[in-house]
Amino acid sequence: MQELGIVHRTIARASRADVEALSAFGVATVHEAMGRLGLMRPYIRPVYPSAKLCGTAVTVLLQPGDNWMLHVAAEQIQPGDVLVAACTTESEDGFFGDLLATSMRARGATGLVIDGGVRDVADLEAMDFPVFARAINSKGTIKATLGSVNIPVVCANALVNPGDVVLADIDGVVVVPAARAAQVAEAARQREDREEAKRRRFATGELGLDIYDMRGPLAAAGLRYID
Amino acid sequence: MQELGIVHRTIARASRADVEALSAFGVATVHEAMGRLGLMRPYIRPVYPSAKLCGTAVTVLLQPGDNWMLHVAAEQIQPGDVLVAACTTESEDGFFGDLLATSMRARGATGLVIDGGVRDVADLEAMDFPVFARAINSKGTIKATLGSVNIPVVCANALVNPGDVVLADIDGVVVVPAARAAQVAEAARQREDREEAKRRRFATGELGLDIYDMRGPLAAAGLRYID
Amino acid sequence: MQELGIVHRTIARASRADVEALSAFGVATVHEAMGRLGLMRPYIRPVYPSAKLCGTAVTVLLQPGDNWMLHVAAEQIQPGDVLVAACTTESEDGFFGDLLATSMRARGATGLVIDGGVRDVADLEAMDFPVFARAINSKGTIKATLGSVNIPVVCANALVNPGDVVLADIDGVVVVPAARAAQVAEAARQREDREEAKRRRFATGELGLDIYDMRGPLAAAGLRYID
Amino acid sequence: MQELGIVHRTIARASRADVEALSAFGVATVHEAMGRLGLMRPYIRPVYPSAKLCGTAVTVLLQPGDNWMLHVAAEQIQPGDVLVAACTTESEDGFFGDLLATSMRARGATGLVIDGGVRDVADLEAMDFPVFARAINSKGTIKATLGSVNIPVVCANALVNPGDVVLADIDGVVVVPAARAAQVAEAARQREDREEAKRRRFATGELGLDIYDMRGPLAAAGLRYID
Amino acid sequence: MQELGIVHRTIARASRADVEALSAFGVATVHEAMGRLGLMRPYIRPVYPSAKLCGTAVTVLLQPGDNWMLHVAAEQIQPGDVLVAACTTESEDGFFGDLLATSMRARGATGLVIDGGVRDVADLEAMDFPVFARAINSKGTIKATLGSVNIPVVCANALVNPGDVVLADIDGVVVVPAARAAQVAEAARQREDREEAKRRRFATGELGLDIYDMRGPLAAAGLRYID
Amino acid sequence: MQELGIVHRTIARASRADVEALSAFGVATVHEAMGRLGLMRPYIRPVYPSAKLCGTAVTVLLQPGDNWMLHVAAEQIQPGDVLVAACTTESEDGFFGDLLATSMRARGATGLVIDGGVRDVADLEAMDFPVFARAINSKGTIKATLGSVNIPVVCANALVNPGDVVLADIDGVVVVPAARAAQVAEAARQREDREEAKRRRFATGELGLDIYDMRGPLAAAGLRYID
Repeated sequence: MQELGIVHRTIARASRADVEALSAFGVATVHEAMGRLGLMRPYIRPVYPSAKLCGTAVTVLLQPGDNWMLHVAAEQIQPGDVLVAACTTESEDGFFGDLLATSMRARGATGLVIDGGVRDVADLEAMDFPVFARAINSKGTIKATLGSVNIPVVCANALVNPGDVVLADIDGVVVVPAARAAQVAEAARQREDREEAKRRRFATGELGLDIYDMRGPLAAAGLRYID
Repeated sequence: MQELGIVHRTIARASRADVEALSAFGVATVHEAMGRLGLMRPYIRPVYPSAKLCGTAVTVLLQPGDNWMLHVAAEQIQPGDVLVAACTTESEDGFFGDLLATSMRARGATGLVIDGGVRDVADLEAMDFPVFARAINSKGTIKATLGSVNIPVVCANALVNPGDVVLADIDGVVVVPAARAAQVAEAARQREDREEAKRRRFATGELGLDIYDMRGPLAAAGLRYID
Repeated sequence: MQELGIVHRTIARASRADVEALSAFGVATVHEAMGRLGLMRPYIRPVYPSAKLCGTAVTVLLQPGDNWMLHVAAEQIQPGDVLVAACTTESEDGFFGDLLATSMRARGATGLVIDGGVRDVADLEAMDFPVFARAINSKGTIKATLGSVNIPVVCANALVNPGDVVLADIDGVVVVPAARAAQVAEAARQREDREEAKRRRFATGELGLDIYDMRGPLAAAGLRYID
Repeated sequence: MQELGIVHRTIARASRADVEALSAFGVATVHEAMGRLGLMRPYIRPVYPSAKLCGTAVTVLLQPGDNWMLHVAAEQIQPGDVLVAACTTESEDGFFGDLLATSMRARGATGLVIDGGVRDVADLEAMDFPVFARAINSKGTIKATLGSVNIPVVCANALVNPGDVVLADIDGVVVVPAARAAQVAEAARQREDREEAKRRRFATGELGLDIYDMRGPLAAAGLRYID
Repeated sequence: MQELGIVHRTIARASRADVEALSAFGVATVHEAMGRLGLMRPYIRPVYPSAKLCGTAVTVLLQPGDNWMLHVAAEQIQPGDVLVAACTTESEDGFFGDLLATSMRARGATGLVIDGGVRDVADLEAMDFPVFARAINSKGTIKATLGSVNIPVVCANALVNPGDVVLADIDGVVVVPAARAAQVAEAARQREDREEAKRRRFATGELGLDIYDMRGPLAAAGLRYID
Repeated sequence: MQELGIVHRTIARASRADVEALSAFGVATVHEAMGRLGLMRPYIRPVYPSAKLCGTAVTVLLQPGDNWMLHVAAEQIQPGDVLVAACTTESEDGFFGDLLATSMRARGATGLVIDGGVRDVADLEAMDFPVFARAINSKGTIKATLGSVNIPVVCANALVNPGDVVLADIDGVVVVPAARAAQVAEAARQREDREEAKRRRFATGELGLDIYDMRGPLAAAGLRYID
């Protein structure tokens, strides 16, 4: 149950080993390994093309146009964490810029995912501090209203619990529950092995129709070829 | 008339020479040479900035969240073709990724234009397999429902017939009917020649007002200068 | 009061020194220095990532799908000006391309901000002619209806008077009234000095909670920590 | 192939009987009867809730912010026709209002479908002249550039040939090719008969699981019930 | 943790009394009573203006363009339930129409909230079966892929657990956790009492400045009056 | 020049007679009478279909998610005023509801135009208090940051000065500068007289082609008729 004005100092992070294991894969692969679940909405985009991150979620619930709680959250960051910022409403103001990135990096944060706007994007890219956001926007924010830190949040339509693994790259953002991280990493590895074998067959010109044995099902579904 | 469950194996492709001729021009020039027609809606964007393509259309009509027909279409690809994928509804799932790109390239495809989402974008850029899409999205798709291949499709509000020339660059996507390809290429060449002459005049500081003889018409329309 | 069919040849430009002073700062900093005012809506984006500009506004009010007045405006450009193009309605056609960029540059223009579409984006990037636009679109425009040049315009929800300073970078576009330019530049410089000091503290791991003395106000607002 | 500056005076309209037959059904039913094809994008909405229309298409291709061709099209209207207006680009200006509605009605038109904006909506509702549009917008238009009348057009992503049957209600807009109108009407009637039988079963509390025999396929797909 | 292919038959519904109590209030009041939390994104709109509902959530997770699980969910409906349908991706197809509404009503459902499209809207209004949706769309759906019923879902960015109270009216949709329903209803009643007293004061012309004692804080914040 | 923290108590309102004169016309007519200028962007919509208003603007610049200044503005309302609320950024929270409507009406306000969200829409309709807004949203707002009252604002891309006439109906919102109100009202009257004459001709089946003498210009532009 969401509540405002709360900071949980103790959270159960996914293990470093599981984060490491998941970081070897792309977002699309991990989402498939979860049974095609766990994606944020695709309007969350990297603010520079090469941005990538993988870490354990410290969550924050922001108020619109107000970045007070990002400072509260900074204190809860441990090395390897990703800050995941949701908002109580839709707000594309610039909640985050190079000063907060400097702070987050100094505390060991791996990056930021935010259902809001950010600024100082050239600095973020120069620092290579990966940020995934819904907008780039210079609009400054205030510090007036409490949200919460390390409560479950819904960010870009995905539920994120503190300690979950968050993986982001140019294909989007996926959230892996801490309890499933090892299993998902293993499933991702198996999937990637299978895909590698298929990739070699595709590269020779073999068709998916044959690799996946689709011709029978297609005919059964009524597909007709016309010359 | 659109029908589902059909694959046309025989299509009338624009000639290789016409494709070659058109590939020398940008999308804006070719669209002007067609009388300002033939553009897809501008929400179709390259998934990496340097993506460019020019080829003959193999068309496919997809069902939402279902990429079965892309595998069917792959078999119909000939070297120099561009796959043009429309959908029966709006769907931004990730219909296409690096495996299908590997397959398409092995069959000789020049690239993909899709009124849907794609994934594995870093791989697509690394392969330099040009893709123009409405979204980047990791969401996986199923293989359950028939569409059609090589029927006329409407993709991003443009009618595309199999065999038409499709040209795409950072300015968008334009479709040239096969029967008009030679004429449009010639008109594009003439336009580019005219533009080159104008470019030199503009570069010296000469004004469009004089190059295009606009001062009279502007005065006639009532334009007033105030000091 | 807006009127159509007017070209003001005499405008009061911000001083070269003030433009120079403002050009040292980013858009976010300048917008903060103005009291968090002056931003255009964030849908105006650079058409290539490294685009930046700072100059005095020559304004133009366009009609939808009609770029006639851009040619009229070109004659009013002086070295150091930025063309700011508003439109009487929402129109994402390609009002501007490489020929007009060549013309504008020859007249000394620093760049373009347009609440509309542009094309020939690869050329614009190759020329490094900075353009900030709401869309990339090949669609050509006509020359049929009068707008005005150097009247006050509303561009992407910001009021722009001729001669105002316009500053744009990857974080957006900000408009500084000519009369406030010196004061805003000074305020930006002071802000940047303060931020530099804070940046060094953040970089050592010090928290915003302490740098900004937030712990008291947060406790007063009722923030509770739970272990 | 689209061409500008053309008016076809002779078109092959679907028969009055077929239009009559189709007019008995809703858009959803007719779209199902066509195999789930033929829909315009759902951004086309009735401008007042009770608007409904069914008739034969007179098509027009408009230029952005220009309603000249609507007057040209008016002369081609015959009783029972629906005007279907596409545009060469996205434009939400107010192309159509009460005067043109008065003219269209006097010529016998049944209504308007337009991939653009309209105005005088209170008058349209008072006249009960059904209009389906992408926007309500007061912005006036000019009369400067040629489009075409009675060529094939793509309107809101649907191909419309002159003479096709266009059916629109609160659920959207569907286009039935003239040659398929009789067959689609018959298929719609059969579907509606089947649905009526099912409706009675549903009304008694019988479940779709049983009416459609879904329990077996669901179990085969792996559905698990947990108490 | 979300899982596919699961139907929970046993859920803990909020009490009938709590639902009854909450149904007396509007969505805005209840959202305030929860501390300004619990709202779905405002793109979920009633499909006819007078639609209102209040009941206990039966949740369903749909696949794009696939309404199979709505039939599975129908069996789990008990009188007073509201069906809340989320989707694994963005899909605006017409998942729901008059047949399913007939079925749901026969099972005792109070209405539907769906992060997708619906059709047969005229019938839904005629039946007065309240539906809140992201789109009106005739596009039919298939029955091919498993989702789940009565798992926690994220619908329009709000977390919904089975059994939660869902309240919807023209102002939007709010979700009240079952465990908090009584407390929220009481807080809503108190808020409404306070508002009624204020409403009477406002109606006499008294100002919020005085009712809420804002003049001091405004002056302290630096507000200046200029004659 | 915009400044925050200011309330102008003295503004120059358009005369009651001019407001009265303008109130006789629709938004489309008045916008035409102004030379097709003065419209707000069409995303501002009436929150109930019959909403209409005409009055003199009291302007307010809001901060995102903060309605403090609406209470400040209420004190400046005089009978016949329309409150026009802009925001320093895009914010669709529910700034305004039935209590503020009660207050505004008690002060004599004619209605509200707001580039933000509102709530209690059923109450607003029951009171017939006309509101034009960009969203309907229950999300509550805070009272923490100063904006200004009766400064020039840009609302939905239109410049509004305090005292201007604001006219709104189902076709949109138009702003008439106070100094031009009499002239625009007269131009609107003349336009309506001309339109009434044309309406009668259209109603008899006469064509715009003939009423506006378009056949010559169309032929000159190259229009070709094909039988």
